[in-house]
Amino acid sequence: MDIKKELTKRADFFNGQLEKFLKNGSPEKLYDAARHLPFAGGKRLRPCMAMLSCEAVNGDIINVIPLSIAIELIHNFTLVHDDIMDKSTLRRGKNTVHIKYSEPTAIIAGDLLFTKAFESMHKIQTSLEVFKNVEYGLIDCIREICEGQQMDMGFEERNNVTEEQYTEMIRKKTAVLFQYSSEAGAILGECTKEQENALNQYGLSLGLGFQIWDDYLDISSNKEILGKDIGNDIRNGKKTLIAVHSINSSEGKEKKQLEQIFGNRNATEEDIKNVYRILEKTGSIEYAKKTALKYIDEAKESIQILPDSDAKQILMNLADYAIKRKK
Amino acid sequence: MDIKKELTKRADFFNGQLEKFLKNGSPEKLYDAARHLPFAGGKRLRPCMAMLSCEAVNGDIINVIPLSIAIELIHNFTLVHDDIMDKSTLRRGKNTVHIKYSEPTAIIAGDLLFTKAFESMHKIQTSLEVFKNVEYGLIDCIREICEGQQMDMGFEERNNVTEEQYTEMIRKKTAVLFQYSSEAGAILGECTKEQENALNQYGLSLGLGFQIWDDYLDISSNKEILGKDIGNDIRNGKKTLIAVHSINSSEGKEKKQLEQIFGNRNATEEDIKNVYRILEKTGSIEYAKKTALKYIDEAKESIQILPDSDAKQILMNLADYAIKRKK
Repeated sequence: MDIKKELTKRADFFNGQLEKFLKNGSPEKLYDAARHLPFAGGKRLRPCMAMLSCEAVNGDIINVIPLSIAIELIHNFTLVHDDIMDKSTLRRGKNTVHIKYSEPTAIIAGDLLFTKAFESMHKIQTSLEVFKNVEYGLIDCIREICEGQQMDMGFEERNNVTEEQYTEMIRKKTAVLFQYSSEAGAILGECTKEQENALNQYGLSLGLGFQIWDDYLDISSNKEILGKDIGNDIRNGKKTLIAVHSINSSEGKEKKQLEQIFGNRNATEEDIKNVYRILEKTGSIEYAKKTALKYIDEAKESIQILPDSDAKQILMNLADYAIKRKK
Repeated sequence: MDIKKELTKRADFFNGQLEKFLKNGSPEKLYDAARHLPFAGGKRLRPCMAMLSCEAVNGDIINVIPLSIAIELIHNFTLVHDDIMDKSTLRRGKNTVHIKYSEPTAIIAGDLLFTKAFESMHKIQTSLEVFKNVEYGLIDCIREICEGQQMDMGFEERNNVTEEQYTEMIRKKTAVLFQYSSEAGAILGECTKEQENALNQYGLSLGLGFQIWDDYLDISSNKEILGKDIGNDIRNGKKTLIAVHSINSSEGKEKKQLEQIFGNRNATEEDIKNVYRILEKTGSIEYAKKTALKYIDEAKESIQILPDSDAKQILMNLADYAIKRKK
């Protein structure tokens, strides 16, 4: 199976629908700003998960388009606001919204994407009971995403974050939206309760694995490949699993060095290199990689109970693809 | 009738309900930030309007509490984000959220208030059809508020704003939420279509009058002293009805002066005094005052068709109270 082709097919279909939904509007600058990130590319992992989950329980994917659009817009709204908070300048290889359109406009553009997501939810064709239930799930999700983002920022000022606290943070900040995508996609596909639980677990595990892998890539990759600022995470004191593991498993002088360099905005290239050396020594990069893979395997395991189908197979492969693991 | 007493009675009841709904949570800093503005006072005009509209059509106000909470939270979310955009430091006599809790936390706190508003909407006890209809109205409202805020910012860079464009801007930025408050309050009170239209018009007119009056107060309360804030509005190029009217009705050298001074961050005290002189000459301050009063009178006129009741009488008085007009 060519997983990339299968996902591209769905992403292309999704993009056509998103283009129809998120049209230009007035004031033009606001709509340009709101459209900037959603149309700057992106793999559409979450919409694909919603569509595939629906397919995997034998539902019609046309029923999950408004849901998929809502999920992608919520994802983009959080990115637009996060980029302001993190002072990020690049995203998907392009200028972030606040760099291109100013910070005030980026704040409103994010708010507008948030609003448009709910506008899309209202287009879901289903019973009112199911609509209300599924919409409430999204609201709950966004609350957790807000909480997770605040936890993430709070952790930047702390060096005593436990692995458990870290996992709770990424569950909220990242995993809940994956979890929601696959679960709500299945619900709109009229799944059984067992299937719903399976796809809920799939999305959660995949989301956790995805975020840890993302942090792993940030630290083991370079600017050209990811389109993100390098060393940023370390200078901002961002608590990735790698950072948490390394601080918690280093000792003496090296622990002190980590504590001094993490969160030091003026850290030199030499400091960053030094951090890398300690991360290698504590085996933290390898630990994060292994943990991510463990979650990805859990995700795959959790959907074994689904009836065999192409969609099920794609979901299995998507779990690997999400972390770009060669099969 | 003691309008203040009547409103205080409802605002106190509302505050108790809001306190129960918007509890502390984790992370503590995020919830503190989110609770800061909603519990920093405020007249609760919009919730009162929703409650009174419901009462005026003989509905039970208990049915509009979740709606009222949602409206107030949306209002507060927009204020939190607007204050960041406008770099305002004070609101309701206290530090703004971003000053007290940092800008990133204020952005998320606003997002959380937005989310909590929809959480509250889901507590509305009504048929699913009515719920969906009323919720969609709020979504539409927020979209317009975003558009209005962007228009307001865009106008700062333009001197060719027409009165029509100005009115459309404040309709979106301010009036739609008043309009929604009274209309949705009436819908949940199970009103007739005629009553719904009347209260829709009431909220719209009151909202327009309220915003113009607000701008009028800003400039007239500083008449003698030429306080710093009004100078800043002029230096920022803020387009109030007064500014728009004055630019559009002045000529020659004076029109040029206005165009040069509005939006000039380095305008001197002398420049500001000069603007003031021209505003007086064009009669723009008086024009704004008259326009505000016209809308307030329209608001009162539009609900004449409601059956007589205490609530109707309070709504009539509230229109004057909103602009602090002595009766």
